[in-house]
Amino acid sequence: MDLLLTNGTVVTMNREREVLAEADVLIQDGRIARVGRNLRTRGASLRVLDVKGRVVLPGFIHGHLHACQTLFRNRADGLELLDWLRERIWPFEAAHDADSMRASADLTFAELIRSGATAALDMGSVRHYDAVFESARDSGFRLTGGKAMMDAPDTHPGLAESTEASLAESLALLERWHGTHGGRLHYALTPRFVLSCTEKLLREVGRLAREKQVRIHTHASENRTECEVVRQLTGRDNIAWFHELGLTGPHLTLAHCVWPTAEEIGLLRDTGTVVCHCPGSNLKLASGIAPVPEMLDAGVNVCLGADGAPCNNNLDMFVEMRLAALMHKPRVGPRGMPPERVLEMATLGGARALGLESELGSLEAGKRADVTVVDLSGLHTTPFDPRDVLSPLVYAARSSDVVHVIIDGRLVLKDRTLLTLDASAVAASAHQHSARIAARRR
Amino acid sequence: MDLLLTNGTVVTMNREREVLAEADVLIQDGRIARVGRNLRTRGASLRVLDVKGRVVLPGFIHGHLHACQTLFRNRADGLELLDWLRERIWPFEAAHDADSMRASADLTFAELIRSGATAALDMGSVRHYDAVFESARDSGFRLTGGKAMMDAPDTHPGLAESTEASLAESLALLERWHGTHGGRLHYALTPRFVLSCTEKLLREVGRLAREKQVRIHTHASENRTECEVVRQLTGRDNIAWFHELGLTGPHLTLAHCVWPTAEEIGLLRDTGTVVCHCPGSNLKLASGIAPVPEMLDAGVNVCLGADGAPCNNNLDMFVEMRLAALMHKPRVGPRGMPPERVLEMATLGGARALGLESELGSLEAGKRADVTVVDLSGLHTTPFDPRDVLSPLVYAARSSDVVHVIIDGRLVLKDRTLLTLDASAVAASAHQHSARIAARRR
Repeated sequence: MDLLLTNGTVVTMNREREVLAEADVLIQDGRIARVGRNLRTRGASLRVLDVKGRVVLPGFIHGHLHACQTLFRNRADGLELLDWLRERIWPFEAAHDADSMRASADLTFAELIRSGATAALDMGSVRHYDAVFESARDSGFRLTGGKAMMDAPDTHPGLAESTEASLAESLALLERWHGTHGGRLHYALTPRFVLSCTEKLLREVGRLAREKQVRIHTHASENRTECEVVRQLTGRDNIAWFHELGLTGPHLTLAHCVWPTAEEIGLLRDTGTVVCHCPGSNLKLASGIAPVPEMLDAGVNVCLGADGAPCNNNLDMFVEMRLAALMHKPRVGPRGMPPERVLEMATLGGARALGLESELGSLEAGKRADVTVVDLSGLHTTPFDPRDVLSPLVYAARSSDVVHVIIDGRLVLKDRTLLTLDASAVAASAHQHSARIAARRR
Repeated sequence: MDLLLTNGTVVTMNREREVLAEADVLIQDGRIARVGRNLRTRGASLRVLDVKGRVVLPGFIHGHLHACQTLFRNRADGLELLDWLRERIWPFEAAHDADSMRASADLTFAELIRSGATAALDMGSVRHYDAVFESARDSGFRLTGGKAMMDAPDTHPGLAESTEASLAESLALLERWHGTHGGRLHYALTPRFVLSCTEKLLREVGRLAREKQVRIHTHASENRTECEVVRQLTGRDNIAWFHELGLTGPHLTLAHCVWPTAEEIGLLRDTGTVVCHCPGSNLKLASGIAPVPEMLDAGVNVCLGADGAPCNNNLDMFVEMRLAALMHKPRVGPRGMPPERVLEMATLGGARALGLESELGSLEAGKRADVTVVDLSGLHTTPFDPRDVLSPLVYAARSSDVVHVIIDGRLVLKDRTLLTLDASAVAASAHQHSARIAARRR
């Protein structure tokens, strides 16, 4: 059914970055048909949602996420990246079965929708990635993702796989899911990071991505020790190594890039590679502060993401936007990372991370109808200048202010209630499977 | 009426830092009578609140706040401290009248109670501080605060006052409010900062604080330019200057201390002076990152505070706790600032900032009954290990998880509803007065 949002403050994120007061958004056949004033037409078969006094904006898009890890939330504090992976995350991931993976994904998409996100680029564990796609299929969430590829010799024994098996399972998943459900689900080739992948695998991923025209999603230069080990192993800096292997380009999304060299920033810009900034995760794992304003100034595409729940501990774009706006200011000054720049990372930037910038990231006629409606009338956002809704959105709002969420023209959250998932069943299942995984790991 | 909280997970913050599962808290005559198992007694005239599955903890205490600035929220982005004060905050403050001040204070205490705070150390503007006390009196909030003292020659013309007038109004407010309402309201002498106070005023504040046995609340070493100007004016570092003037001691709370010298950290420790860390504010104003883990390791008393809404833009201890836990980790490692240390700053640390550590900050028999009850069953905190509620509290919870708040044994928030303030009337009044102030300022 067609849907009309009326009388909202519409943050379009179009080229002119127009913010329209008391404007409507008309949604037809899953796409935005028109944005403007007085779009209500008589007699049409139209569901009307009055959003007076509320802010209508493009749904948030996380450019880096691990749905498989959401069950490990609050169980992995006080560790740096490599210890965090070896001591907690890999053993936990190895203890997953298809049911616990589904529980983890359901919890992920429920939390994401509640917090105004409509799409994400996800990295799975080595196995059970069908369960993540099934959860996205059923919850109506927009997902691009893939199984983690881990064929290096010293990978965790419960996750290690052969190069051939890794590629074969990736291709099978790609065949089953890529472009399905009206183009809402896409496959991405997902080598974990240099230290868990052979050179052979990485080269083959680069080749396959071009052949199959799918995205590559991996981690790079997150942690200083990791960067050092990569240099020892390959003789190259991390991003430069990916470039040499033929992986860089607009179809590659690199999570983190906390420690790029100046040359690597140039490489990222020249190749159109997308970087996903994960501010909460970078702080919690003590990884460092990524040079995000500097990369943006250089012309690199940078988006935002929550990473995994055990290194955050939320999956919440409001939390990440606020952090991204604040954490760089002591270095670059109070005008660095203003709200409009941060909101662009969370919307248009995320669309680029998924390679869907012509389809997502702004409220413009012809794009997919992925929309979030936010209530700024709460005490914690009051007062604000009605001519500037971006400041309260980025600095003061939180995900409990999200009222409605629409994905592909379908209401998935209405009046703060999930329509495609049962929140209490999801929470109960998450607790049960999380305890089972913690027990199995020992 | 006596009140019994039953079957909660009680985070006592007592000397042993006990966390009691399925425990009760018995409140009688505004104080905690007992904490333990099965305190329910038959026949007693007792109101019982079942908090099964919820976390019961000491109310949060902000060690630095500006209730007068809450109306300026979302209207002062992109500026460093001194410009922020001169271009926005002082002109806004000068445009306050008693009614707008009351609206600002009502909004402040409503937001604070909703976010689980039960007490604060506040700095007013130069005038209309009675309105802030009146709001605290009526809302049931626990307040120690005072009017800002600003007698230096180059202070904003709409705020400037003579040394004599500043002292006289402070003493009049002290007489009217200090120790009133069952000891819930206290006066603090509140010179704004070195740059807006004469040496004569600061010396007199030091003398008066000892004579009247009240606290001193001021700012120190927040911004590098400020520190330089203080050195030029006084020939001393900021904290060292306060020490020389006779202000340091356990009765002094210094907001910020982003740039203390090594000797000054020693001074803070040796004198028992309390420092209030304001992580959100320090980032937003690009002030820097205070050496908080280092000060704590040195034995300095450090608490937490939200500062003012226009430099944050929330007044939310969950936001500050999360930031305090995260922002220092890249410097001090992932085990720096663990949840227990951060929670201590937000409770016992705040009690020291108010000089009320024998009365507040933990749930122990004999202390005032200032209690916050938090629901950790939300999707964004799920799952967690039931043996560790501190990790979800600090890293994952948010203020919308606060269910009940009790101050001095009185329920002021029940089932997420404010009992002493009308949230929608407070918001409407805030919008109206904020627009008036913005117009008056021009």
